Amino acid sequence: MEFSKRILAMGYSPIRKLAPYGAEAARKGVKIYHLNIGQPDIETPKEFMEGINNYKDDVLKYAQSQGIDEAINSFIKYYKEWDIDFESNEILITNGGSEAISLALTAICDVDDEVIIPEPFYTNYAGFAQGCGVKVVPFITKAEEGFHLPAKDVIISKITPKTRAIMVSNPGNPTGVVYTENEIRMLADICKENNLFLIADEVYREFVYDGLKYTSALYMEDIKDRVILIDSISKRYSACGARIGLVASKNKELISQIMKMCQVRLCVPTIEQLAAANLINTPKEYFINVKKEYESRRNILFEKLSKMPGVICKKPTGAFYIVAKLPIKSGEDFAKWLLTDYNYNNKTVMVAPAEGFYATEGLGMDEIRLSYCLNTEALADAMDILERALAEYVKIEK
Amino acid sequence: MEFSKRILAMGYSPIRKLAPYGAEAARKGVKIYHLNIGQPDIETPKEFMEGINNYKDDVLKYAQSQGIDEAINSFIKYYKEWDIDFESNEILITNGGSEAISLALTAICDVDDEVIIPEPFYTNYAGFAQGCGVKVVPFITKAEEGFHLPAKDVIISKITPKTRAIMVSNPGNPTGVVYTENEIRMLADICKENNLFLIADEVYREFVYDGLKYTSALYMEDIKDRVILIDSISKRYSACGARIGLVASKNKELISQIMKMCQVRLCVPTIEQLAAANLINTPKEYFINVKKEYESRRNILFEKLSKMPGVICKKPTGAFYIVAKLPIKSGEDFAKWLLTDYNYNNKTVMVAPAEGFYATEGLGMDEIRLSYCLNTEALADAMDILERALAEYVKIEK
Ligand SMILES: Cc1ncc(COP(=O)(O)O)c(C=O)c1O
Ligand SMILES: Cc1ncc(COP(=O)(O)O)c(C=O)c1O
Repeated sequence: MEFSKRILAMGYSPIRKLAPYGAEAARKGVKIYHLNIGQPDIETPKEFMEGINNYKDDVLKYAQSQGIDEAINSFIKYYKEWDIDFESNEILITNGGSEAISLALTAICDVDDEVIIPEPFYTNYAGFAQGCGVKVVPFITKAEEGFHLPAKDVIISKITPKTRAIMVSNPGNPTGVVYTENEIRMLADICKENNLFLIADEVYREFVYDGLKYTSALYMEDIKDRVILIDSISKRYSACGARIGLVASKNKELISQIMKMCQVRLCVPTIEQLAAANLINTPKEYFINVKKEYESRRNILFEKLSKMPGVICKKPTGAFYIVAKLPIKSGEDFAKWLLTDYNYNNKTVMVAPAEGFYATEGLGMDEIRLSYCLNTEALADAMDILERALAEYVKIEK
Repeated sequence: MEFSKRILAMGYSPIRKLAPYGAEAARKGVKIYHLNIGQPDIETPKEFMEGINNYKDDVLKYAQSQGIDEAINSFIKYYKEWDIDFESNEILITNGGSEAISLALTAICDVDDEVIIPEPFYTNYAGFAQGCGVKVVPFITKAEEGFHLPAKDVIISKITPKTRAIMVSNPGNPTGVVYTENEIRMLADICKENNLFLIADEVYREFVYDGLKYTSALYMEDIKDRVILIDSISKRYSACGARIGLVASKNKELISQIMKMCQVRLCVPTIEQLAAANLINTPKEYFINVKKEYESRRNILFEKLSKMPGVICKKPTGAFYIVAKLPIKSGEDFAKWLLTDYNYNNKTVMVAPAEGFYATEGLGMDEIRLSYCLNTEALADAMDILERALAEYVKIEK
């Protein structure tokens, strides 16, 4: 009665590992500012709950395995606004971007095949890969360089006969990086020249600041059939609990292969799909306001953070995260200490140690990820507390 | 840009393969009785939609990865009625029984490990196994024997050093078999004596007829830590579109391993879980009425079917399916012919060829599966049409 080697090799969520310490601190009456999670605090558009009421059947039936027409059509319409043309047989609705990732990997990788990913990366990429026996081959991006991509030959040096794809999150979780058009072009060239797929996780597409132009992998006309798009309404509409995402590709044969797996798991919740479909009716102001809000949070966070002695970080331009290098030995110890040993006026902060976002052993030990899913006032207070805490911790560590 | 071998090896849903012929017949104005699908036509209890309104937060947040307390507690309460005791850390809420199956397989099997399954079986077992590189090792059960289990040594003969589990659906899809206490005891003994898990898919637990006693695998006290329960509200509450299921086990360490994968995919839809949790308030009469309804449908179907010349089947005692052996060469050809070449008074029936429910090549060719998700009047008419059609087809085939 042993468990599989693959499940034993998997780790528990590094972000959730701190939860018991947080719970203990809360029990002691300490207020915790959560800078550790990617759960937006922005209100979900009311169009979502309205959409739920569009379900009129007395029987809550299975939906089509590819997704209901209403949902697929609403995404087609949404992509048009981004100058991306999809047909209905190029999109499959999934249980969040999460399921889309595992479907994409399973469809193009056999066991022991490799996928190249810039690190630090969204931790669960490693979990999905492990679950389906795929090897993550990382290449390093650095805080000092704002986590932009290294030179082309660095990436190419990671390619082996087993490499099937490059996978990127753009804008990046945990880094907040937004790749330039040149960077996306470079990835496209590498994929084309080396016969690889490009798995483009664009779930933070809306969250790009400073008036920067966003470049979707799908803008690269010459590799359209190589791009596998991962998307989700979780962050876009602050609707994480809906679990509606999609995998899409102009490569119709790929989508038709993935469809087999969609049939096996039957379908995605019918009502959630209807609700998600109705989000297309969210007024445009919603995004303008949300973006403005995140941008001002980013400014507060970055201003405070970059002034802390010994902290290395560049201003992130997307998503709602930042990874910073701290003048400490272990982000994990620091994160724990913040919950078990520190408080200022009975308040403390919870941060995510960045170690878990790296595949290379030993990297990211002195880094943490902060998210800015708190309102500006709370965020400013949290950053002040973090500053005091860091100063104190640096002394203790010496 | 090749696809993975594992995805290429997967097939499309055998039930859905006939869909285009059905669509074509419908276009010609032929009325089709659907005896091919497992989508119940029974009304979903209103408690489901009421439960949706229990979501009060302005932000639709991620739920806990293991499932929300309300859902887990409602299942604990439900199992108590079946004399099954679960604690909250022994249950993980999943995206339907479907996800539960793939989580169970991944947690106990590495690539090339084997799972023994009586055939015919729920087709998607093969799909899930293929998706995670696990080999299905079938043993035969027969229409003549009502698809009950063969002798112990037949099953034991399938065990190899790579065998990790036996997996059964009880009541059975597609067979409608309900295993006796002796049969479940035998499976328990085999698992105990050979150090195997028993994956018990009990999603049709409520659908047991003729006053028979239902024996859950969890009633076998001595193998409680070997039983992995797959469950779902899909059929129980006619809520297939909710996609709420669970994987549960008294083996807490197993559940805690599976939890890792649950964290990777984040969570199951928050609102659907609340709605599902509220189903515990469905009045008891609901089940009594539903069971009565299915039982009378079963009676009509079986009476008509068993009288057709050359048809071999035993009266099924559970779920809402029957597999029958017909005096024909190919169930698939017959199913197609029913849609393309036959109609009686402009009506025809759609059936599922049973071939797809077998792993062994060549088995089930002369069998079909019928489901009884039609009201009694429609069902009687459908069976009369099937009788005429079969008589005609037998002549043509000669
Ligand atoms: C980069 C990235 N991709 C995918 C996901 C998965 O999100 P979901 O499954 O909620 O769509 C997340 C969630 O945090 C993410 O950060
Ligand atoms: C035997 C059996 N198990 C599991 C399932 C999966 O159901 P769901 O994913 O809707 O819970 C089905 C669906 O038909 C089934 O027949």
